[in-house]
Amino acid sequence: MMSRFLHASKHNLKAYVPGEQPRGRKYIKLNTNESPFPPSPEVQNCLTAEVMAENRLYPDPEMTALRELLAKKLCVSPKMIMVGNGSDDILNTAFLAFAGEETPVAFPDITYGFYKVYADLYQLEKKIIPLREDFRIDASDYFSLDSLIAIANPNAPTGIALTLGEIERILQTNPDHVVLIDEAYVAFGADSALPLLKDYENLLVVRTFSKSRSLAGARLGFAAGSEPLIEGLNRIRYSINPYNVSRLAQRAGEAALYSDAYYVANVKEICRIRENTKTALEAMGFEVLPSKSNFLFTRKAGCEGEKLYSKLKERGILVRHFSQARISDFIRVTVGSEGDMRIFLENVKSVIE
Amino acid sequence: MMSRFLHASKHNLKAYVPGEQPRGRKYIKLNTNESPFPPSPEVQNCLTAEVMAENRLYPDPEMTALRELLAKKLCVSPKMIMVGNGSDDILNTAFLAFAGEETPVAFPDITYGFYKVYADLYQLEKKIIPLREDFRIDASDYFSLDSLIAIANPNAPTGIALTLGEIERILQTNPDHVVLIDEAYVAFGADSALPLLKDYENLLVVRTFSKSRSLAGARLGFAAGSEPLIEGLNRIRYSINPYNVSRLAQRAGEAALYSDAYYVANVKEICRIRENTKTALEAMGFEVLPSKSNFLFTRKAGCEGEKLYSKLKERGILVRHFSQARISDFIRVTVGSEGDMRIFLENVKSVIE
Repeated sequence: MMSRFLHASKHNLKAYVPGEQPRGRKYIKLNTNESPFPPSPEVQNCLTAEVMAENRLYPDPEMTALRELLAKKLCVSPKMIMVGNGSDDILNTAFLAFAGEETPVAFPDITYGFYKVYADLYQLEKKIIPLREDFRIDASDYFSLDSLIAIANPNAPTGIALTLGEIERILQTNPDHVVLIDEAYVAFGADSALPLLKDYENLLVVRTFSKSRSLAGARLGFAAGSEPLIEGLNRIRYSINPYNVSRLAQRAGEAALYSDAYYVANVKEICRIRENTKTALEAMGFEVLPSKSNFLFTRKAGCEGEKLYSKLKERGILVRHFSQARISDFIRVTVGSEGDMRIFLENVKSVIE
Repeated sequence: MMSRFLHASKHNLKAYVPGEQPRGRKYIKLNTNESPFPPSPEVQNCLTAEVMAENRLYPDPEMTALRELLAKKLCVSPKMIMVGNGSDDILNTAFLAFAGEETPVAFPDITYGFYKVYADLYQLEKKIIPLREDFRIDASDYFSLDSLIAIANPNAPTGIALTLGEIERILQTNPDHVVLIDEAYVAFGADSALPLLKDYENLLVVRTFSKSRSLAGARLGFAAGSEPLIEGLNRIRYSINPYNVSRLAQRAGEAALYSDAYYVANVKEICRIRENTKTALEAMGFEVLPSKSNFLFTRKAGCEGEKLYSKLKERGILVRHFSQARISDFIRVTVGSEGDMRIFLENVKSVIE
């Protein structure tokens, strides 16, 4: 049903389609790249009745405490940090701030689906750049583009990462445009661009607490960039929703930053399970792209991605399938717990036999 | 410092200026219309460690449980409800969905400051309609406007409410455009437009948990409207941030809906304190607009609003002052606890003497 009230400019807008969030049947859920581990004990206990009572008051719109903690950890000034209601909130703000008429947006043909959605929502010109044959980003395709550039590193859903040197060349050749590096999955093995912040005023690094910090449910992300970039982002944030991050999420984020050892151990374990799962899939004849993330992107000759997805779902295992032409033979599998991955592998085996 | 990266279309954008949220000195805080009462005991205890552990998973992007509770309470279908990260999130979504080229936005000259900010952010044509001399909205000014219409009822910062009959005439004369009634403060004495939902497909009612439900810190609002309107809003929500409401906020909202008796009693008490405060101000020679909200908008001949604001701030009491020409002699005072209002009145007395 098309709403007759929806403005004509949005009639052809294709919204983002998030992975299924099932509410009835219990699935082994390997479809939205959540952590198999709960938040740290500090986080689990941070919202006391006393903290809850303070919810009568608006949150700090400047997120001072959380930003100061983040800044200290990242060795930058708090003025170089903005916090958002998940990293999607930050991406939305960045597209509004740094693109527009005569400033297109450039991103890979195969990447996080939201970049295209924001571009369409704000009627931005798009430069969609195909990945190479082997599903890698060719950094030289992004030199001197006169555009806002959005690159997920590691990329999704491929899991493949760029090197810091490649990112630096993109920054050097686009000095007058923002290069947004979306590091949602960086903790799982890629090199963060954060060390480049001191040299590149045009670098915006976007991070999330949803993956390595087990806080997808609390909605928390942040951006790190030069003061002019963060000032620009804040101009837009204060024009949309200055109280975008709740007291609850701010507190949970602060507690999470005091639990580094816990999360570092989780990440290490997830990377170990990832490599074991990759080896097992390869032994069954699957091609698995080299992942620096908490998911595997994999296909098997003669095996339709959608069919594999459906048969696994019948068996109670949710993975993600994308119908986009170049990648429709793949499935994307979140790295879950050791037990979940054993069951996943057993079921893959029985499906392909 | 103007960011050289901020897109030219945003260089003149004036962001919203929220009320001060002081972090150092302790003030009696009567400037952002928060409740003097904490959230209900049910809310204070709803985020157990078990609930917190589930934060590793994304929230339900359809907010099914919360929407079903709201729908039951409002006697509408869950398809007529959308939930947002505070009501600002919903307003932002509505402006993107229902206005655009050839569909301007109409709102009063004196009202919630964010309507103008959204209009400017999205470069919408504005029809700004002056309040009458006595600071009332004249409903007939809004007949047949060919625009998205945004009206706060009761209006802010005046506190004055329209009648249901007046709102119905606006709906009748604008059948092809959305009439957004922002009911942030409706619990404190105005008539809600919710009963009109069954007859008007163009009515969108926006509500918040921040005021009467003491949850400003959790960020939670909702919209109620016809299915086509909600479908249109969701198209935009899924194009910005489908996971816009955290698990924490959804849980807190559900708990709040189970605590009606508690909140009804709070609202009654706030209204009683409001009327006593109004009487006391009038006894000191203040003019006080007839408020159906949890704040009072007041002025005294020969007494500058900004000076009153500053002198109260020196004395540890924060109220809100707006520099806009027509209302610069007023201050807006949130109705706080009985004790807070006694101290406020004593200080007003000493300031004006």
